[in-house]
Amino acid sequence: MKAYNQLELIFKEIGLIQSLAALGQWDNSVTMPKGGSNLKQEQLAYLSELKSHKIHNPQLNDLVAEAELESLNDWQVANLRKIKNICLHEQAIDSKLAAELIRAKLKCESSWVAARQNNDFKIFTKSFSPLLQLIKEVAQVKAEILNKTQYNALLDEYDENRNSKDIDIIFNQLEDFLPQFIAQVKEKQNNIKVKNFNIPIAKQKEIGRFCMNALGFDFNRGRLDESVHPFSTGFSPDDVRITARYSENSFVLEGLAAVLHETGHAIYEQNLPKEFIWQPVACASGMTIHESQSLFVERHIGINKEFFTLLSTKFNEIDVDGMYNVATKVGESLIRVEADEVTYPAHVMMRYKIEKSLLNNEIEINDLPSIWDQYSLNLFGRKPSNLKEGCLQDIHWSWGAIGYFPTYTLGAIFASQINACLKTSLDINELIKSGNFAPIFSWLKQNIHSLGSKLTPSDLMLNSVGSDLNVKIYQEYLIKKYLE
Amino acid sequence: MKAYNQLELIFKEIGLIQSLAALGQWDNSVTMPKGGSNLKQEQLAYLSELKSHKIHNPQLNDLVAEAELESLNDWQVANLRKIKNICLHEQAIDSKLAAELIRAKLKCESSWVAARQNNDFKIFTKSFSPLLQLIKEVAQVKAEILNKTQYNALLDEYDENRNSKDIDIIFNQLEDFLPQFIAQVKEKQNNIKVKNFNIPIAKQKEIGRFCMNALGFDFNRGRLDESVHPFSTGFSPDDVRITARYSENSFVLEGLAAVLHETGHAIYEQNLPKEFIWQPVACASGMTIHESQSLFVERHIGINKEFFTLLSTKFNEIDVDGMYNVATKVGESLIRVEADEVTYPAHVMMRYKIEKSLLNNEIEINDLPSIWDQYSLNLFGRKPSNLKEGCLQDIHWSWGAIGYFPTYTLGAIFASQINACLKTSLDINELIKSGNFAPIFSWLKQNIHSLGSKLTPSDLMLNSVGSDLNVKIYQEYLIKKYLE
Repeated sequence: MKAYNQLELIFKEIGLIQSLAALGQWDNSVTMPKGGSNLKQEQLAYLSELKSHKIHNPQLNDLVAEAELESLNDWQVANLRKIKNICLHEQAIDSKLAAELIRAKLKCESSWVAARQNNDFKIFTKSFSPLLQLIKEVAQVKAEILNKTQYNALLDEYDENRNSKDIDIIFNQLEDFLPQFIAQVKEKQNNIKVKNFNIPIAKQKEIGRFCMNALGFDFNRGRLDESVHPFSTGFSPDDVRITARYSENSFVLEGLAAVLHETGHAIYEQNLPKEFIWQPVACASGMTIHESQSLFVERHIGINKEFFTLLSTKFNEIDVDGMYNVATKVGESLIRVEADEVTYPAHVMMRYKIEKSLLNNEIEINDLPSIWDQYSLNLFGRKPSNLKEGCLQDIHWSWGAIGYFPTYTLGAIFASQINACLKTSLDINELIKSGNFAPIFSWLKQNIHSLGSKLTPSDLMLNSVGSDLNVKIYQEYLIKKYLE
Repeated sequence: MKAYNQLELIFKEIGLIQSLAALGQWDNSVTMPKGGSNLKQEQLAYLSELKSHKIHNPQLNDLVAEAELESLNDWQVANLRKIKNICLHEQAIDSKLAAELIRAKLKCESSWVAARQNNDFKIFTKSFSPLLQLIKEVAQVKAEILNKTQYNALLDEYDENRNSKDIDIIFNQLEDFLPQFIAQVKEKQNNIKVKNFNIPIAKQKEIGRFCMNALGFDFNRGRLDESVHPFSTGFSPDDVRITARYSENSFVLEGLAAVLHETGHAIYEQNLPKEFIWQPVACASGMTIHESQSLFVERHIGINKEFFTLLSTKFNEIDVDGMYNVATKVGESLIRVEADEVTYPAHVMMRYKIEKSLLNNEIEINDLPSIWDQYSLNLFGRKPSNLKEGCLQDIHWSWGAIGYFPTYTLGAIFASQINACLKTSLDINELIKSGNFAPIFSWLKQNIHSLGSKLTPSDLMLNSVGSDLNVKIYQEYLIKKYLE
């Protein structure tokens, strides 16, 4: 058997292990009775060890070296590229370090919960400090192996080949643009009164399912459930599940937004190339691209007067203008996940700066609260009143995820480029109003979804919309939507 | 590390793998979207291979041999007994045979579905024939290793150390007793008119949850869901899930019966000894004991005028006498799962005889329909009108489960012995009427549940109720309930 085919067999096993872990995590968030929590942690830790064991198999690197000399087609070449990337990232962490990391993450996550509850940063420091130390170790090893800066080495896991220098340029452009723009939008929205819409939760669910069906989510290969934090997960293109969260008086910003956002993620997963199932090349192309798909559906299709018009033809509860105003109201939320589309990048940019400084030893963990307060004051005009509203609002760092945050805004930028590109050939607003989403998703499937991670994220961008990340198009989209 | 402790670590892994498989199977029956079916089969096959691989590890037998010489406490000795039993059963099937078996089972299960749909026995024969051949091979190997007859070797997997000679004695006694008894009951029930009770499904669920709570099912460590066939499954004592099936006009025999039956299984699982979690000794003591727990709750607690009286104080829908009459009506169902308590053993006994003859080459697969018809005519006065009502009504054989059927009736017998034993010290009917189930379940926990499989099923019986299986007590229970 060719070395390449042996690799495929090994990665099929790894794919199956990951799909079992995803099922366990889904169960953990959606169906598990509370008492099952310890069992679940043991199951997930076991699967994680099993996967790590497969990837640390020394034979794997020999097979990769052999496969590189074999004659492969372009999908196989891309798969081998992804396999090498996974091996580099996973093998950088030896089994001792991996075990320490898992323990440190679990510990830090629960102390994050406790620190928030008690509004006591010291509780967090105690367990984040050793975790950050481990992450720095990981970053150092990966930086050497990947020949990248430490931050880029971490970033690479979420967005292959992305470079923080490019992010700096993009974020600097946004920093120049946003303050005045936000002021203008607020000025314009000054007279718009926003009201609450009370919609019974059963009706919200009905509307949500209608949206999912209309957008092309295949319920034969997926589910919609409820959980504390909305998420999407795919065990394979044939089993993709999303969750939403509902509250009676917050239909637009909670129930609807979550369903639209997660449906964007989910349709991407349902359209991944099934012919390479279980292989790394059949997975989504990183978090920036994933986020672009959810944000494209949420913001470019969903938060759109035409979309609300479509809904109003089916549901009496829909108030097109009133709901659009709620969805586009620009405020000063100190909480990232509750922020509007216009101020959201500011939340991301401050986290990006802070996590880089943390990693590069330019700041100490103990400085976090005061630095956060300062950013908050500069960006939103006030300091958070507690840690939940401040530097402990996000779970990411307590899970060791450094390098993740920028993908939210990079994804938002790419979503606006997709929108601009589609508009050159399709009358998008007309399609949305008539509920005819097929031409839009057919383009997405052909140019993005069905390619899996055959291309690097940058190449995928070039190949689909003709350019890498382009802030100008993003700014034009914001201006058109919020000032015209 | 002691060899015994090394064995514990290996069996912890095996326990985790099994708990993941149980989660996958639960998902398959309860939450999985239809399209996820192939993925699920791949996941389950992978876990099954993984488990088989662990048990075929040659080092395992050396560890067992070493551990036998070590100084162990009585729980550890029992655990080692179970470990040896599992190794004997699993290692009897080499990996080639195991792979063939899995394929043959999957194939036979789907042809069973098709044969039923088309009422065409040939479809079934084609795939059952090679499966039966494999089962005979397995039985032969196991018989040699375990030094038992072939049937006893298969039976041992479901009911450790049970001997078909003892079953023959028990079933002969029942055969002498039942025909006349059934005639007497029918005569007595002649004038009782049975009516249907229409209860909305939402209300049936509410009643079901009330029963579960009252009986002591811990919802913090379990769930109730719906599925096509009711079942219970435990991933650990901290996560035990049951399902029921509802139809509006069949509350007593479907919704309520399923919830009571599965709750009996589930409380057993929730009470298993957590201090030995993942070890074989912490598992239930085989299918006869498991079935005794479900049947005890269903028939001795649930199908009881006092229980209906308790329900009637909470729910206006309950008609004590009317519903008790439905639950105890003796009929001539040709379908085992729809049979009443009194004719049920007849269904089991015919299957027991037929599967023994099949295994011992006394009959051919092609004889099955005519033999079945003959039994049906003798026992129930008429032949089935099609295969669904006849020899293809049960899935067991198509899954290669030979030796399973008798445990249903052995469990029913033991349940009646538990009932008789409890009555010597508790006023059970009074406890049921007042909803005070704690003394009953406290006895079950102490004498059965919390022992896991520390004792063999026969020893567990001796230890708890003072005797091995005793048909006389079972007959007395039936006479008292149905003739007095």
